[in-house]
Amino acid sequence: MIKNLAPLPDGTVTVSGWVDTVRDQKKVQFVVLRDESGAVQLVNPATREAEDGDAAGQERLALTETISGLAHGSFVTVTGELKHDERVKLGGIEVKIGSLEVVGEALPETPIAADSSLDKRMDWRFLDLRTPKQNLIFRIQTTFEHALREYWIDNDFIEIHTPKLMASASESRAELFEVEYFDTTAYLAQSPQFFKQMAQPAGFGKVFEIGPAFRADPSFTSRHATEFTSVDAEISWIDSHEDVMRLHEELMVAGISAVKAKHGEAIAELFGIELEVPTTPFPRIPLAEAKQIVAARGYEIPRADEDMDPEGERQIAAHVKETLGHDFVFITDYASSIRPFYHRRHDGDATLTNSYDLIYNGVEISTGAQREHRIDVLVEQAKEKGIDPEELGFYLDFFRYGVPSHGGFGMGLARVLMLMLHETSIREVTYLFRGPTRLAP
Amino acid sequence: MIKNLAPLPDGTVTVSGWVDTVRDQKKVQFVVLRDESGAVQLVNPATREAEDGDAAGQERLALTETISGLAHGSFVTVTGELKHDERVKLGGIEVKIGSLEVVGEALPETPIAADSSLDKRMDWRFLDLRTPKQNLIFRIQTTFEHALREYWIDNDFIEIHTPKLMASASESRAELFEVEYFDTTAYLAQSPQFFKQMAQPAGFGKVFEIGPAFRADPSFTSRHATEFTSVDAEISWIDSHEDVMRLHEELMVAGISAVKAKHGEAIAELFGIELEVPTTPFPRIPLAEAKQIVAARGYEIPRADEDMDPEGERQIAAHVKETLGHDFVFITDYASSIRPFYHRRHDGDATLTNSYDLIYNGVEISTGAQREHRIDVLVEQAKEKGIDPEELGFYLDFFRYGVPSHGGFGMGLARVLMLMLHETSIREVTYLFRGPTRLAP
Repeated sequence: MIKNLAPLPDGTVTVSGWVDTVRDQKKVQFVVLRDESGAVQLVNPATREAEDGDAAGQERLALTETISGLAHGSFVTVTGELKHDERVKLGGIEVKIGSLEVVGEALPETPIAADSSLDKRMDWRFLDLRTPKQNLIFRIQTTFEHALREYWIDNDFIEIHTPKLMASASESRAELFEVEYFDTTAYLAQSPQFFKQMAQPAGFGKVFEIGPAFRADPSFTSRHATEFTSVDAEISWIDSHEDVMRLHEELMVAGISAVKAKHGEAIAELFGIELEVPTTPFPRIPLAEAKQIVAARGYEIPRADEDMDPEGERQIAAHVKETLGHDFVFITDYASSIRPFYHRRHDGDATLTNSYDLIYNGVEISTGAQREHRIDVLVEQAKEKGIDPEELGFYLDFFRYGVPSHGGFGMGLARVLMLMLHETSIREVTYLFRGPTRLAP
Repeated sequence: MIKNLAPLPDGTVTVSGWVDTVRDQKKVQFVVLRDESGAVQLVNPATREAEDGDAAGQERLALTETISGLAHGSFVTVTGELKHDERVKLGGIEVKIGSLEVVGEALPETPIAADSSLDKRMDWRFLDLRTPKQNLIFRIQTTFEHALREYWIDNDFIEIHTPKLMASASESRAELFEVEYFDTTAYLAQSPQFFKQMAQPAGFGKVFEIGPAFRADPSFTSRHATEFTSVDAEISWIDSHEDVMRLHEELMVAGISAVKAKHGEAIAELFGIELEVPTTPFPRIPLAEAKQIVAARGYEIPRADEDMDPEGERQIAAHVKETLGHDFVFITDYASSIRPFYHRRHDGDATLTNSYDLIYNGVEISTGAQREHRIDVLVEQAKEKGIDPEELGFYLDFFRYGVPSHGGFGMGLARVLMLMLHETSIREVTYLFRGPTRLAP
């Protein structure tokens, strides 16, 4: 890999990558070669005319012509002489080309440029991903996820892979994708909600999953996708959503610490961001209080129900940043009216739930809650939401043969990355985005 | 957790779990309490009659009656006095119950028993999963996957999440699930094949993914599912499938070593298996030679094409086990006629491919190959297989703007676990199995 060249002594090396730029001067040719680890300058003294009867000369002429004809983006393997030279701006090293093999030739015209629209770049995502910034995004994702998993493994969680094909809805009848399934219809899981809860009566104790979830959501916002990577955890024997929030903030600290340690410098260089590891505990503000704070800042939430809206979330996040200097805030104790039937309600006040949303740099990234595990209460809450308990089928059985208290959260991976890197859309941080009009590539 | 009780000194403890058994004797009651980490005996000196006017006596009577009424499977929290006593068979410890809270009460009749059919057990999978053997399977899965990911992270791989919703088929037009997608039709990914290959022209170098894949396969064998967890890797700059096999065998060694280290004793105890870490290199046998060996063993493969069949795979695995003592074998160099168009063919012999299947304890767990990255050859091979290049749409574009040589493999996670633990069906090692007639729970 190119990043491994610098520590090597001067001498013969072989290096592979794609052609970033070619400067084809009369007497000398320069090629900047790039791979996933960096870039290096290659140099070739140009041979413009064949010297009769000299085989080596013919070879030098052929090499010069090959370099002149190199298309941007072609993948090549080069063997040559590495030389350390402080005058070379690009890393202080240079490789004098001995031989060059074109392994994968590119068409001469690249269909996108640096200033192409986001939509055009998504059409040609595999070219868009070649930029160092895009490459870094997915290295950060890799590091972030691995840090979460290390936390989970260190804390005896079990990894589960819940099915994405279901006989019924997992969240709501709306936004549900239908699949032709032999002689019947299946639905794509909107979340692993029911199945990660199933791990609780199964006695798994603590579980996690990172996997796809599907929403037939026709909206075109910068925060929504029809398919997204959901980060989920669910744990037994909790007293309230406070236990879930403690787990959640520890995971965020683990993830961001690992990203800062491994990529902090690169993030500063390519994104101009000094990544901060958040302190714990994260601020916690009950929804009712958050709404008062937002109102006092002069913003009236234009909603008929009791929920926040995106601008309200930005406002409360700004308040927290200004007063506490924190990028995260848990909004807690959402009204029962705007939470699903399976959220546990306060003992003594059924209008409030043991639930939270986690806001990161002004945008919601996650919903968590203690679940209602008492079957009689759960059935009542379903009915109250207008859900026929018959429709819930096997889900209610999970609570009939013994179940511990439990709770958990689901978090959108792309939102975390978008907010961490101050990007404007999850499309920028998703390998291949899926939206109402986007199914390819 | 129960496993943490033994090292504690005698004294007051609080422990939670589900009721495994109750022995309700006249003078003393025993409860075996279980959680995901183990089991412990609880004891209560029975109080059968109320002593008038004695509040403590009333409490003891209530506790006795609660224990008498405990249904198998109820989740309870107990506070009591831990006592180490070598005479107690179950781990040499016992907890004398002080108080007992029923957190999640079970119905008195458990719908499955140890001798229930597999299908019945799948109907009640959350109860089936409570058995120590089932719990261990998913701890093994967790450890195995984490070891693979640690290998990948240590070797600079990028984790990708490829979309499961596609505009076209990723493998074949057969066995494809259709999804109603707004005004059009989407298909569920049969594998991440096209999208993990996309990471190569994107300059990601080395990528991995563990995620769901979908096949509308109507078969009911012990090895097939309509949804399964696929373990995938794809790497740039290979010389042949040999580089992929080297990666693959190192991953299997990393995974099995970690499982043996963490769960070797439990596997011996619950499955009666002494797990062996395989030596590298794994044996490699070209398909043509493998068929001769199988024929020499007296088995004639009843197929019209040039492929192996499951019995042939068992035979060649038996041969390898007998002659080399190895549980794994790579069958290599499959005929082009039975491999997809994107497998690279031998230089100089287009009838053979740079591909392999990996056989573990007699069953195929994976297919790997070098990919054809030369666009002109790729188009020809597609045509030869009767595929209109137009149908391949964006996939062919991946090869038009520069691409390195590359290859990779896809592996069924459940098959690995089934074969590692000598189970008879992937249903036993899948959290929630999906088949042609199985969509719930």
